[in-house]
Amino acid sequence: MSNAYEQFRHWATTLLRYRHDDEVYQFSTISALLEGVYDGNATVADILRHGDFGLGTFNHLDGEMVILDGVCYRLRADGTATRAAPTDRTPFAAVTRFHSDFEIAVETRTHRAEVAAAIDRQIQSANLIYAIRITGHFAELHTRTVMEQKQPYPPLTQATEEQAETVFTDASGTVVGFRTPDFEQGISVAGYHLHFLNSDRTGGGHILDFTLERGTVAVSGASQLHLSLPTSGAFLGAQLAGDDVAERIGKAEGPKGD
Amino acid sequence: MSNAYEQFRHWATTLLRYRHDDEVYQFSTISALLEGVYDGNATVADILRHGDFGLGTFNHLDGEMVILDGVCYRLRADGTATRAAPTDRTPFAAVTRFHSDFEIAVETRTHRAEVAAAIDRQIQSANLIYAIRITGHFAELHTRTVMEQKQPYPPLTQATEEQAETVFTDASGTVVGFRTPDFEQGISVAGYHLHFLNSDRTGGGHILDFTLERGTVAVSGASQLHLSLPTSGAFLGAQLAGDDVAERIGKAEGPKGD
Repeated sequence: MSNAYEQFRHWATTLLRYRHDDEVYQFSTISALLEGVYDGNATVADILRHGDFGLGTFNHLDGEMVILDGVCYRLRADGTATRAAPTDRTPFAAVTRFHSDFEIAVETRTHRAEVAAAIDRQIQSANLIYAIRITGHFAELHTRTVMEQKQPYPPLTQATEEQAETVFTDASGTVVGFRTPDFEQGISVAGYHLHFLNSDRTGGGHILDFTLERGTVAVSGASQLHLSLPTSGAFLGAQLAGDDVAERIGKAEGPKGD
Repeated sequence: MSNAYEQFRHWATTLLRYRHDDEVYQFSTISALLEGVYDGNATVADILRHGDFGLGTFNHLDGEMVILDGVCYRLRADGTATRAAPTDRTPFAAVTRFHSDFEIAVETRTHRAEVAAAIDRQIQSANLIYAIRITGHFAELHTRTVMEQKQPYPPLTQATEEQAETVFTDASGTVVGFRTPDFEQGISVAGYHLHFLNSDRTGGGHILDFTLERGTVAVSGASQLHLSLPTSGAFLGAQLAGDDVAERIGKAEGPKGD
């Protein structure tokens, strides 16, 4: 009897905890991507079970991923965005259940660095995780999109050297991403990691830089990280980490010359 | 109708997933400990809800923590081990539901490094997390036990300089700990992080070195890491990470002169 009650209480607690909005769920690590682990066994359906907002990439590095309002998009190197299939697979993705903890209205032309600084000033702690959603009109937005890779896979720093860069001008859309604590470097991208999807849902990419004309920055905090590591494939044998992880992430994920 | 079914399926999946034994639940980060964040708001009861096996420390750095068979012990600098109260608080702890994936019988005198090498040869991947339980008789076992700290807290490398070291000789007991992937350095202690509890449950500490006479090494793998970050206290304002994290962890957690 007491046992059944305990069991019930345990389940109820679990369900309540699971419904909390303050978790980021991530499949695999950015250090695995750096080492050329471009195939994963997690499906888009698996990822969407854990959140309605996030980013990532697809198997063979075939496009950037944006998840917005529970829909997963694939942004290809040709500039197109299409809805991903639930069965599409990913080697790296991070999602959360987006809720707005606070918003910042931007009414004058503001550069990426100033937007980041404004967020930095308002967050509770640089040691928690924040999902960032910027909806607005952009004077200019520079993106890159990774290109499909063939086996044997080169490391990410090499794969991104061939990346297609696109400049969106005078474009409406949404920036989707995360601000991640420094101690997560290697597991995730420390600092800001942002993707873009235009308002027509027809184009976008991994953001290198932007100037926001006007819009709203919404920030959704998380104190729980669920890291799901691959249990099969190239991840298992990959030589991960190394002292130069931060430098290589900067080279692969940041603007050229950063 | 379909909605109710979806909800049911979602809950059922959640419960099944939650009952999986392949999760390590961790409260806070080792980099926060390094910076002197020695007070946390997680209770022993909170931690035990997520696992029956693990390690950590207590508020004010008042003792090493061992969790074995669902019981939480506090190992103090005077060499004693006592049962922790459910309301005791911790600034850092990691637990899992221990299940034995494989065991290694040790029948001849074996040094710590050889035990580690034997485990390394049998694990599926250096990129997954493994709980390590070594039950046996130890020819010699060197431990340290952190000492209670007073505000303002010094960093961990300084706090551990004053640590009490104990040598157990001809002792039976259990080694409790984890083997953690390199990419988790800063979040956890990369490599082996082991604590000891003697078979009488009266003494133990953080392991610096040991020679196993005979015993059984049991290994319990995990592919899921749930990292729970503190939402209050000194953690929020701490300056975490930095390039020398690995070096400082080695100094604070490893044998002297390692």
